[in-house]
Order: sequence, then structure tokens, then C-alpha cells
Amino acid sequence: MSRLFGRTLREPPSEAQTPGHQLMLRAAIARPLAAGLYTWLPLGFRVAKKVERIIREEQDRIGAQEMEMPVLTPAEIWKTTGRWDVLEPITFRTKDHNGREFMVSYTHEEAIHLHAMNEILSYRQLPATVYHFQSKGRDEVRPRAGLLRVREFVMKDAYSFDMDQAGLERSYAAEHGAYVRTFQRLGLAAISVESDTGAMGGDIAHEFQVLTEVGDDRIAICPSGDYSANLERAVRRLDRPAETPKGAPSEIATPGTTTIDGLEALLQLPASAFLKTLLVKDRAGKSFAVVLPGDRTLNEAKLRKRLDMAEIRFAGDADFAAAGSVPGYIGPVGLKADVLVDVSVVAGRGYVAGANKKDAHLKYVALGRDFTGEVLDVHDVVAGDACPKCGTPLELKRGVEVGNIFAYGTYYAAKMNATYLAEDGTRKLFWGGSYGIGVGRNVQTIIETNHDDKGIIWPFAVAPYEVHVVALPMNDETVRATAEALVATLDEQGVEVLFDDRDESAGVKFADADLIGIPYRVTVSKRSLGAKSIELKPRAAKDAELVPQDVAAERILEIVRRAREAASR
Amino acid sequence: MSRLFGRTLREPPSEAQTPGHQLMLRAAIARPLAAGLYTWLPLGFRVAKKVERIIREEQDRIGAQEMEMPVLTPAEIWKTTGRWDVLEPITFRTKDHNGREFMVSYTHEEAIHLHAMNEILSYRQLPATVYHFQSKGRDEVRPRAGLLRVREFVMKDAYSFDMDQAGLERSYAAEHGAYVRTFQRLGLAAISVESDTGAMGGDIAHEFQVLTEVGDDRIAICPSGDYSANLERAVRRLDRPAETPKGAPSEIATPGTTTIDGLEALLQLPASAFLKTLLVKDRAGKSFAVVLPGDRTLNEAKLRKRLDMAEIRFAGDADFAAAGSVPGYIGPVGLKADVLVDVSVVAGRGYVAGANKKDAHLKYVALGRDFTGEVLDVHDVVAGDACPKCGTPLELKRGVEVGNIFAYGTYYAAKMNATYLAEDGTRKLFWGGSYGIGVGRNVQTIIETNHDDKGIIWPFAVAPYEVHVVALPMNDETVRATAEALVATLDEQGVEVLFDDRDESAGVKFADADLIGIPYRVTVSKRSLGAKSIELKPRAAKDAELVPQDVAAERILEIVRRAREAASR
Repeated sequence: MSRLFGRTLREPPSEAQTPGHQLMLRAAIARPLAAGLYTWLPLGFRVAKKVERIIREEQDRIGAQEMEMPVLTPAEIWKTTGRWDVLEPITFRTKDHNGREFMVSYTHEEAIHLHAMNEILSYRQLPATVYHFQSKGRDEVRPRAGLLRVREFVMKDAYSFDMDQAGLERSYAAEHGAYVRTFQRLGLAAISVESDTGAMGGDIAHEFQVLTEVGDDRIAICPSGDYSANLERAVRRLDRPAETPKGAPSEIATPGTTTIDGLEALLQLPASAFLKTLLVKDRAGKSFAVVLPGDRTLNEAKLRKRLDMAEIRFAGDADFAAAGSVPGYIGPVGLKADVLVDVSVVAGRGYVAGANKKDAHLKYVALGRDFTGEVLDVHDVVAGDACPKCGTPLELKRGVEVGNIFAYGTYYAAKMNATYLAEDGTRKLFWGGSYGIGVGRNVQTIIETNHDDKGIIWPFAVAPYEVHVVALPMNDETVRATAEALVATLDEQGVEVLFDDRDESAGVKFADADLIGIPYRVTVSKRSLGAKSIELKPRAAKDAELVPQDVAAERILEIVRRAREAASR
Repeated sequence: MSRLFGRTLREPPSEAQTPGHQLMLRAAIARPLAAGLYTWLPLGFRVAKKVERIIREEQDRIGAQEMEMPVLTPAEIWKTTGRWDVLEPITFRTKDHNGREFMVSYTHEEAIHLHAMNEILSYRQLPATVYHFQSKGRDEVRPRAGLLRVREFVMKDAYSFDMDQAGLERSYAAEHGAYVRTFQRLGLAAISVESDTGAMGGDIAHEFQVLTEVGDDRIAICPSGDYSANLERAVRRLDRPAETPKGAPSEIATPGTTTIDGLEALLQLPASAFLKTLLVKDRAGKSFAVVLPGDRTLNEAKLRKRLDMAEIRFAGDADFAAAGSVPGYIGPVGLKADVLVDVSVVAGRGYVAGANKKDAHLKYVALGRDFTGEVLDVHDVVAGDACPKCGTPLELKRGVEVGNIFAYGTYYAAKMNATYLAEDGTRKLFWGGSYGIGVGRNVQTIIETNHDDKGIIWPFAVAPYEVHVVALPMNDETVRATAEALVATLDEQGVEVLFDDRDESAGVKFADADLIGIPYRVTVSKRSLGAKSIELKPRAAKDAELVPQDVAAERILEIVRRAREAASR
């Protein structure tokens, strides 16, 4: 430790946002070089490599082949799928001195399809799953919480190639299984939830989420265990029958009342009595309205997916005028624009909606009679909504996405014309999926969920070292010699030992040991040697025990052996 | 092999420039994704990881600590050392959506100094050497010969921090030793040569060069073994005494004769009788003349180093006019510009030089009498020049630089004010060095120097697999069952086996085995089984031997064990 590159910090830097972020910095796991750009210090590097090794072993177990694609990939391949433009807001680009453009790769679907077209000629070579660990760039506007959301990170991304949907389903299931085992071995209580496919294309996707308050994602979970989904995709059971319209639409004066809150106060009605109408632009720049009940919020991910856009663009004043409306008083009746109606709007029920003129609303506005439109699910599920599977009230939790898997089918192959020679002599499109795990986010999530107020408590399988030997004090000849001999013996036997050989006080050394969180602390002190013993303390235990000096090495070896066995299961 | 991602090619692609480039592509080691951007296919990936492991083991052996810095690094840190501008022509840059600039890192001296300032507070923490394997970007104008010169590659770069020059010398020597062992284990006959420090700063540097005709670099080597240097830096013994000037300068008519070749023909004198004068611009844009004997070429690297410029900028017509001269007839006498004189120009000797007016030269122009200037070594050494150490005629060879080490001292620390608290209570600058090895270039250099006309002959330590089992034919039940059982046994024993389970002919399978070049080929065929044997053939050997079937697995295990032992030494 006297030469270890990376010093522990007594206090968390002020920018540290979560317990894991604080401990990661304090324990010298990683350091920022700029916002969202991190360096693994030697301790953290060892953790990252152990996480990688576990991921690798589980990928190899299902027959995936490791390879490595470059960080920089040429613009042309991204243009064949349209992702050059779609990913612009979230990616880094560069040009060479001849003006050719490259992306600091977001993922590698395009690249691997290009390779597959070249390497896989015939159905005889299928199925094939390949993977690599490679740095990814993401120009996050707001990097946050240390390694949880960064601008560069190493991802294990795997890609499967199959002959047909049935094959893809098998490959997808194999990866799903590998992920379950991977997170279990990492000591992460990850659950698999349905998720949005976002910029990846396709329709079937799962995220592995670790539920913790520090997470960015919101997950809808049925307590009965039959449904869980990212809020970006979560749906609810809706079984309210259509109603019969009552009165005809009639105008009411609502001067200066442009919000649902304002209308609730003015008309003394609940938010659910209103229609919220949003004017949005599609890919072509054309305006259209989205109508939701007043008590429901728009789910932008669902709408983005419907529009095939990376970001929702809301309309401006000129668009309102063109649609024959005014901001604050927009409603679906008589609007000169197409209408998308959220499934939460009850057909036939009389709602209060904007009258498309200043200071006025309409009451008794009914879907099906007074307006129509494409009906789809674009609202956020909230806690208490009915589970789509069993009707039980859903819970909403926060989570960190530690992995994701996508079955995109022929999405990329079709755009890139990536085909193989099928058994029947025709050329067919590859069926594909992709499967990602970010290494750094996993490391910090392990910290977020494995610590106490003194520091990290590493699961054995990913701890930077297995044993932490503390000599107290180093300037005592007997202590020093005994500790060095013990370290040498353990080293020889292949135990990973961190040796605190610094001239520091017991207080500093124990605090650092607790902070760094290596599973077993072994203290060689004047006092313990007086009792012909060394002191052994598991990081997770409250108390230390004295072990006779003459059997100490043997005892530690036995403990490490057992811990290794348990961790490899 | 039936599922291996990456297919062998019968013919080398037309763009393949060297034997190693051809074999690398044919054997499915790597594939280009764009000019100079390569993907490791699974076979090549295994080689790259073995190369990395050997490099890592030798770094760890000298106590270097592994860590990992990001690919993208912020412009600000490069600006503190001036390298943001210097490296512009050879690097990729990007901007985030807030306009902040980043470099796809060229190396990491600036980044590691920033970390060292933060992590190393006191002399007690010194010395420290850290390293990482990380992708580097180089916007090479002409990527060439496959993996020999690319635009993105993984480099192991190490950085040492010491208290003083003596410490740096120890760290540098330790890395030099690690490099010698590394290349030896990789099966590369690398020699250490003095080299230019280029964009790295400092003065002491060595390159490890593998001598081969496919190399880009030219190396001056003394056959007596006491001197070797990259041509960019190579010097020669010069011990010609100054001469006494003879006649006074007098003009001669040389109409239309603007080259040394032309003058030789016109005046019937050897090239060495002339002075060659080049008009060049310094960093500030000021013109100055470089004067060499007519038989010597300018060494741009030496001049770049003197000027501290990344590229030499030659003067234009306006600059000639300002200096009182004309292109084609420039000479040092009466020139209105500073003069740099190459050491090869003999003082006092009468040379023919340009007269600074059209169609005229001067004869009897003597250094010291008719012109003066800063004298320094800016010429290329040629074969036959005298060794600077012993006078033996030097040889010139081509080489591939497989590693380089730089002792730059306080070069970066001074620019970045990177200090530590010294034992005497003052703050002192770190003394540093950096040490690089490019993984991909090493892999291809191994191929360039280990192959025959049929394919690659991998050194055991870096072979993608240890044993290649070929079953002939796969549709024979006994052959198939025997081969599969053998593969399973070897697998269980931890032998790395590539199994050719394809329905291909003997010709195709043997050609692929020779091409891929795994050290031991084991053939299970109808014929060999008829003799109750399998056939064993080392890739490097001419002939195969028959091994009784019942001892085959044991025999192969024993051979692999011995090969592993030999390779780890």
C-alpha cells in the first residue's frame, strides 16, 4: 500500500452524489479525468477485470466467441441503417484529415453485420454468437453519480446471428440465462424486466435492473411476481367499458386558465375530468395532437417509439396557429391536425377539453362522437395501476440497469441487406439480437448495494484482493518480519494479498481497510503476537477472532479456498 | 471450426502488401472495417490476448501497476503541454454538444501526470510505475500493410514516476529489461536501438526493432555490435580536419542548372563538391537556410527536433525573394537569412554553391571564410559511414518498431507543474519515462517473421490454439467418434484445441491447418485408425508421425506441457 497508485480520501468529494459514488472515490477505485470520463485506479482496475472475467466465463459457457471491433467506426455503415442521424445527439463524432467521418461507437450492430456478411456464407455456419469488450462513447448531457452514467465506458456487447425467429429465440434465451448467472455471480440482485428498445430497433427487449433508490430508471413491478417492466414500456390493465355520451359539447369561459391545475381549481373537478392535448411534430415536421386524461402524464419513450424519433419535438406558436388553435386552450374538437388518443381516455365519457380559442374550454367532449384518432398507449403507469397480467396494484421502484438484451430480428439485416445462403438455395436475412453489459456501472452498483457506513463490503468474487494484511506497527521488527513472512507465504500460494506496509496509525489503517472493503482483514500486531496469534476479521463481520500464529497461513488459505469455491458457483 | 466466426481465404486480397498482411487476412486473424481500422476475429483475438498476457506478466514482474485511462481525454490537459497543437496533424479530435474538445488519445503522458499530482503526495510513495492497455488513435495519412500501421490500435503504455534522474534511470533500465524479456517470449528477435524522441519530448529513447524487409524504419547498425540507431537519429564518426581555403569565391555560369544532378553533369564534379542549400521556416515563420554537402540528404527528424516542430515547412517564392535569392540558385554566401550548417560540410574546403541569382553558382565557397552558421548534424547516415563508436562501416537495415521507451525526465512535469513533497520539505518535479508496445503490430510482426509459403507458423506462446484436431472424413462414424473423444479429453485437461469438424476434403482441411499455423496438428483419419493410430505433425516439421491411438491423448498432453514450459521461460 505504500506504493499503491491511488490514495484513499477521508472525506467524500463534494460532487459525489450517491453512497456508491462517494465510496468509489474515497476508496480510490476510479477518478474522473473530466466530466463523465473516468480512470480505473489499480484497485478499481482489479475489480473491473474480475467483473469482466465473470461476464466472459458466462458468455463462453453458452458458446459465444470473443473478438474485438474498433472504437472508431466509419459513418457510412451507420448511414445504411439511419442511425448516423438518429444517434447524433448522444454520440461523439470525428473526422480524419481527408474529411471522412467516424463515430466513437455507440454500439456495434452495424459493424458486426458487415463482418457477418463477409464471414458467414452459409446456413452451415449458423447459429453464431460473438462478443467483445470495447469502449463506448455516449455524449450524455448530464453524466451523473460517478460510474452510473458516464460518457465513455467499456461494454461487453454480444451479437447473435440465426437463421430464423426460432433460432433467435433460442439465442436470446441462452443470453438471458447467461445474464442471470452473471449477475448472481457478481453479487447483484438483478431482476429481468421488459424494456423499451430505444435506438436499438426491434420489439422484444429486457433490462436487468438492480432495485435501489440511486437508480435512474423507474420500474413497474407486480408484487405477485408475474410482471415487471421499465416505465418506458410498462402498461396497465384497462377494462373500463365505453360510456354513453351525455350532454353535447358546450363552451365554458375559462379566462387565463391554461393548466390542468388551474382548471381543477376553477371548475372544482378532479384532474381526470379533463383532457390534456399536446401538439407535437412528427419526423416530417407535421404537427399532430396527443390527447391524454388530465391525470396522466405523457410517456415520451412510448411516443418516440411510435414516431421512430430519438427526441420528441413539441410544436411552436406558428404550429398552433396552423392547426387553428392557441397554446393553453388546445383541444381535439375541430383541430386541424391528426390526433393520437391515449388508451386511458374512456370512449364516450364527457371530458372538459380546450376549445381552441383563448380563455375558453368545452365540456362534454366525448371520444368517438366529438373526435377520433389513432388510439395507443402513450401514458405513464403510476403506482397502484392494475397489473396487465393479474390486476394486482403495481408498485413503482427505482433501479439501475446493469444489462440489457434486444431481439431485433431482421431490423439491421434488412437495412444492410445482410444475408446468408439458406439450405433451400435462397438468400435469407440474418435474425439477430444484441446483448450489453456495462462494466463500470456494474462495479458501482455492486458498491451501492454492498456497503456500510464505514466503506465497501466487496462480494468475494469481485474484491480487488482476497486478503488485506495490516501490520501494526511497521517499525516493530518482529511485527514487520512476521507480517512480511505471512504475506510471502500467501503470495506463494496464489492468494491475492494487499499488504498495508505503511507507517500509519492503527486508526488510519483500520479505517482504510474498512473503506477499501477487502473480504478478510488479517492484523499482525504487537498485542496479537504477544498472544502468539494474528487477528482475523471478515469485512462483513462485527468481531475479529484470534488465530494461533503457527496455523494462521493454513487457516487463511482454507478460508480463501472455500470462498473461491462458493464464488465460482 | 464449422461455427468459427471468420473464414479462411484461398487467395490474399489484392490490397495485401506484405507476407504477414496477406497471411493475417487469409488466416482470419483480423479484418479491416475501414482503412486502418481493424477488427480482431476470434482467432486473432486469442493471439492478441496472449501477446497482452506476456506483456502484462513482464510489466507485473518489475512491479508496474495496471490501471486504465479513458480513450477520450480533454483538450485542456493537452494544451498545458502544447501537444494539442503539435499533435493536430496525426490525431482525431471530437467535441461534445457543449463545444468542449477531446482527443482520441495519442498517448497518456498528460493524463497520467494529472493523476500522479493527485495520487502521489510524498516522496514516500515513489518510485511508481503504472501501465494500461488502451486504444490509441492515429490519423495516419497512409495506413499500410495491415496491422503494421493503423489508425486505431491497442497499446500497452507504461509511465514511471521517480524522485530524480538516478531513479528514472533505474525505472528505465527495469522497463528495458522487461521489454527484452517480453519480445523474447513473443518469439521476436527485437534489437534495442537509439531513437528519436519525436512528439514525446526529452532526449533519451530507445526503440525495439525487428529487422525485416517489410519494415518502415531504417536502422543504422554497426556489425561490430557496439552501435545501432534509428536513421532518424543515427550519427557517424566525422574526423576530417578543417582545410585551408584555396581560391576566392568566383561566379560561374550555370544556365538552367538547378539540381545537384545537373551540376554534376555540367561541371563534371562529384556530388560531394557542391553545397545543397534548403530554405526552411522556423516555428515563428522566419526563413533560414540549411546547408549540406551535395551528396548528403536532409534528415527531417533531426531538423524537426532542432526546430521543435511536428513537420518541416519549406519556404516559398516570396521567402526566397525576401532572403535575396532565387529557387534553384540559392547559396549561403550573402544570403539574408540565418544559416544552419550540417556537420558534414568540411570547414575551409572550397565548394560550389548557388550564387543567389538566376543561372549562376559560385566556386571556392568555404565555410568559416565565406559564410558561417550554427553547425549541427542534420544529414542522413548511409551504409558504409563510419560507426560513431568504433569507425567500422555501418550497415543500413529495415525494421519494424515493436516497442519504444522514452526517458523524458521533467519535460511534462515542468509544463504541468506536477510536483511531490520531497524529503527535504520542498516541492520537486516528477522525473518520468513512458514505455509503449502496440499489440497489433507485434502480432503481425510475429507473422512476418514466422511463416512459410503455406501459412503462419505461430510460436507456441502466442498461438491461437495449442492443438489442431482434423477429422477425416467427418461423416465416418468411427473417425468422428474418435476425434470427438480425443478433443473432449484434451479439453478436459485444459489443452486449447481447435477442432476441424467441417465436411471438407483433406486438401481443404490440411491447407487451412497450415495456413492458420497452430503448433501441433493431430489428424484422425480412416487410414490412421486402420493402423490403430493418429497422425501427429508439428506445424514447423516436414513430416508427420503415427502415434498409437491408446497413448495419443497422453502423448499430446506431454508435448503440450513441455511446450508450455519452454514458452514460459
